[in-house]
Amino acid sequence: MSVLITIGREFGSGGRELGRRIADELGIAYYDNEILEEILKETDYSKAYLQEVSESRPAALFPIHFGVSWGHTYAPLNQSMDVYAKQNEILHKLADKSSCVIIGRAGDYILKDHNPFKIFVYADMSSKVNRCRERNEDKNITDQEIIKHIKKIERERKSFYEFYTNTKWGDKNNYDMMINTSNQNIKEIAHLLCAMIKSNKNFQ
Amino acid sequence: MSVLITIGREFGSGGRELGRRIADELGIAYYDNEILEEILKETDYSKAYLQEVSESRPAALFPIHFGVSWGHTYAPLNQSMDVYAKQNEILHKLADKSSCVIIGRAGDYILKDHNPFKIFVYADMSSKVNRCRERNEDKNITDQEIIKHIKKIERERKSFYEFYTNTKWGDKNNYDMMINTSNQNIKEIAHLLCAMIKSNKNFQ
Repeated sequence: MSVLITIGREFGSGGRELGRRIADELGIAYYDNEILEEILKETDYSKAYLQEVSESRPAALFPIHFGVSWGHTYAPLNQSMDVYAKQNEILHKLADKSSCVIIGRAGDYILKDHNPFKIFVYADMSSKVNRCRERNEDKNITDQEIIKHIKKIERERKSFYEFYTNTKWGDKNNYDMMINTSNQNIKEIAHLLCAMIKSNKNFQ
Repeated sequence: MSVLITIGREFGSGGRELGRRIADELGIAYYDNEILEEILKETDYSKAYLQEVSESRPAALFPIHFGVSWGHTYAPLNQSMDVYAKQNEILHKLADKSSCVIIGRAGDYILKDHNPFKIFVYADMSSKVNRCRERNEDKNITDQEIIKHIKKIERERKSFYEFYTNTKWGDKNNYDMMINTSNQNIKEIAHLLCAMIKSNKNFQ
């Protein structure tokens, strides 16, 4: 029996580390930036461009007749829709290949036909700031700067998710389980979740 | 090491059954209507009255000076605040006594100093309707009637929770874990959660 775990996450909540640890402990594949690498292989886009658009909503929304009425299409919108389509195709390919953990990219929605176990990871702001500070090289960065960055990334994830899925990012109804990592040890939570997943008869 | 598990739940989500099964499997106490029985023993209120007010917000909110300016207090409001205070006291007493599962009654908030593992259980409307139908004796009841009843009970729980805690019922930030029971087998989820709780070194 194969298992597909999708993880949506607030920035700084430790969702990525959680996914990595679950994949390691269960001995299954893990895809996060690996998804970008796959798109890179199959398209002419630059890595920097892909990083920018792969979890962002297209830069602006234009009326559907915009391109038509002027006889041309709006290139940036077309390009990011193209990246989204490619990402969509690659997510399906990866999920078909073997059991895996997929981080972000609306995997829960795009892969709904694969019956994923959909997790959303969140935390309070002070825990997120602490996690970001631990992994930030600039030790002089202020809490205010970190909070601003967290909010910016989360706005992008939210816009991306809501643009492509037409449902709310972080809304409990989109997930099977939501996990609060505030003041929690991610390694411990990952281990507990693995105990739970291993006890699930669908994964034996 | 003792464990305290509080379970908030949407009506028909199976939260009560989940709590009962977790308590049984872990061999710890379970409190739901038992809390009312305790209040009954210690007060003169009738069971019917307690059932009505124990998870409802006071019937109406009056300006704080209402009673004072007219030289008397507003009895129904006073009574339900009295039941709340008694319930509060009993919840602390039960949590002090031994490991347990506590259903509803803003246990997560009232017992926050006991460091509970706070679960919220929810499901989509059709799953909730199906669960309600299974346990309803009236086989002629329509879906619309069931939905109306679910919404009524949830409005009461929401008002109760928000009146006493000043935070939002069902808001992910109030819980450690949120579990979607739509189309899920509660027995199976309970077993998985127990596997997880048993793996937690704080409970060994």
